[in-house]
Amino acid sequence: MATLCRPAVAVPEHVITSADTLELARRLHADHPQLPLALRLIENTGVRTRHLIRPIEETLRHPGFTARNRVYAEEARRRVPPVVERALAHAELTAEDVDLIVYVSCTGFEMPSMTAWLINNLGFRPDTRQLPIAQLGCAAGGAAINRAHDFLTAYPDANVLIVCCEFCSLCYQPTDLEVGSLLSNGLFGDAVAAAVVRGGGGGHGVRLERNSSYLVPETESWISYAVRDTGFHFQLDKRVPTTMHMLAPALRALADRQRWVMSELDFHIVHAGGPRILDDLCALLDVDPHMYRHSRATLTSRGNIASCVVFDALDRVFAEGHLTEGARGVVAGFGPGITAELNLGTWQVPAIPAATTEQPAREASLAPAP
Amino acid sequence: MATLCRPAVAVPEHVITSADTLELARRLHADHPQLPLALRLIENTGVRTRHLIRPIEETLRHPGFTARNRVYAEEARRRVPPVVERALAHAELTAEDVDLIVYVSCTGFEMPSMTAWLINNLGFRPDTRQLPIAQLGCAAGGAAINRAHDFLTAYPDANVLIVCCEFCSLCYQPTDLEVGSLLSNGLFGDAVAAAVVRGGGGGHGVRLERNSSYLVPETESWISYAVRDTGFHFQLDKRVPTTMHMLAPALRALADRQRWVMSELDFHIVHAGGPRILDDLCALLDVDPHMYRHSRATLTSRGNIASCVVFDALDRVFAEGHLTEGARGVVAGFGPGITAELNLGTWQVPAIPAATTEQPAREASLAPAP
Repeated sequence: MATLCRPAVAVPEHVITSADTLELARRLHADHPQLPLALRLIENTGVRTRHLIRPIEETLRHPGFTARNRVYAEEARRRVPPVVERALAHAELTAEDVDLIVYVSCTGFEMPSMTAWLINNLGFRPDTRQLPIAQLGCAAGGAAINRAHDFLTAYPDANVLIVCCEFCSLCYQPTDLEVGSLLSNGLFGDAVAAAVVRGGGGGHGVRLERNSSYLVPETESWISYAVRDTGFHFQLDKRVPTTMHMLAPALRALADRQRWVMSELDFHIVHAGGPRILDDLCALLDVDPHMYRHSRATLTSRGNIASCVVFDALDRVFAEGHLTEGARGVVAGFGPGITAELNLGTWQVPAIPAATTEQPAREASLAPAP
Repeated sequence: MATLCRPAVAVPEHVITSADTLELARRLHADHPQLPLALRLIENTGVRTRHLIRPIEETLRHPGFTARNRVYAEEARRRVPPVVERALAHAELTAEDVDLIVYVSCTGFEMPSMTAWLINNLGFRPDTRQLPIAQLGCAAGGAAINRAHDFLTAYPDANVLIVCCEFCSLCYQPTDLEVGSLLSNGLFGDAVAAAVVRGGGGGHGVRLERNSSYLVPETESWISYAVRDTGFHFQLDKRVPTTMHMLAPALRALADRQRWVMSELDFHIVHAGGPRILDDLCALLDVDPHMYRHSRATLTSRGNIASCVVFDALDRVFAEGHLTEGARGVVAGFGPGITAELNLGTWQVPAIPAATTEQPAREASLAPAP
């Protein structure tokens, strides 16, 4: 039994509005022949505010990959711990209860991974398993949930901590002038998210029931990084907005196997990469657009925060507080590949007051499923 | 049930001998004050030959991270497929039978990961799960085995393909002149390895029984990458050779939980990062040095091939052909963190002729353990 508990999400203090973004684009690319198209695309995202780890003046400079990756490491060490502490509190667990840390980030690179730093600095056990994932981009939030689900299927009494650290502003590349790059410069935001997937039957949140992955054939080049001396260059193909036609069948197939119907689900936590994703999915799956209000709110107020999106949208479901025991829903991450990571689950409300659901002391050795 | 089948391993065609390495070090670092120490350390590794994806003259040039990462992508696409095909053949499976691909590599970076390319080009199903791991270094071979083991504990009839692609020569940094860097320049080699971990009870190899991870507290800086404009700079602390004193207890603790005794095991597949690791482990665990002959042979003839080491050593166990049903052993990967990834297993020989152990047609949906 795996329950995805309430996430903790934090966005940085430096805010950039859509007006700021459009003004910047006009100023920086005044002579760009496709500026009007880029401005229209940025406006169409519906993003109103985004948050950055550094002031915009600093974000616009490129001090080199060496310096940028150093900023990544410093900011991650500063911004991740409070989010992890809150996610553990939401799950009513401590660091010692965690058996696996899945750390997801595609905007900086370190070896050892942050998993080692977290274990050394936040009280996790030295035998905590480490799973750093750097190459699944925006789909990695969904992938982290699915791999945590698999792990708890193997070890039902274990607990998994997921951490997503996405400082997309560190991938801003001033020399990239394709329309897709200009659009990305107005779309992505920075955020940190964490959530516990709790075994043992306890916890308040999404009881994960069935997961699947799907790679849309022959779309590897549609969303990608060019890895260069200057770091990671995000490359967005103009065909990406049409992807949902190819992914909707995978969502429907998963629901079929569970004997559920997508249009009848009670909640939809969907990666809001852009507005077209949400519009198309509603149409293709015959879902009421109101069901995507949480994903849309994330996009509007924070931009595309990569792997953090699904956790931010889920946090809004908790904040709204409408769901009752047994409500059915889906968590769907999308990203490069083009890859979908899907999970169907049921809303779970603790039967007894949460304060009394203490777990027994942890052992280093995990019991596999009988 | 998870059986780690016979790996396939390939080393590139460009060979560099220890004599070549020492000669190069003398020529390139004639004025280095610590040259005699570096030469002695390189000699002490016991490495006789290493294999490189490109000729040594090209390897010694640094054309920039952009160009190097392009070489990585090209060489991976050229060298990985035949190794994958052989690993599948060893397991008597086809690409369609694989449910999860764990792709491990710390010497190049791509997004989407090679997992997407493999699915698109080698006949894997679009619903194959992708797990790319880039940040566990030499421990990633062991980590891949352990995560495959966990996955098959959750889905006992599934199959996992592990691919390790390590082109360490692409991390050669001519401007790094620390003694640890000079040593590394004489230690690491290039290789590709793949192995299937097969569910369903079939297969010839190591039946994985119990795994664990261990992070040695406060050793994050001992083995690390500095990530710079020029790519990944490997940094090796001089305390690393003493690590086994801190890791041996984790090996003994795992054996205790299985009620096994390390010194009585029938096979030891151990990451051969350097000769001291093997010498110390023998002494600390009271193991006959002859038991480490496979790991030592890998180090001698191929150098430290990072995550590929454990698979190369395991391949030598198969080639020797001495083990019989029920023999007990350990697979141990070590790497940055400092992290150990350990697995205890039992040798399994198919009871019926392998050609008749055909599996039923695969379904996209996996059945979890009952």
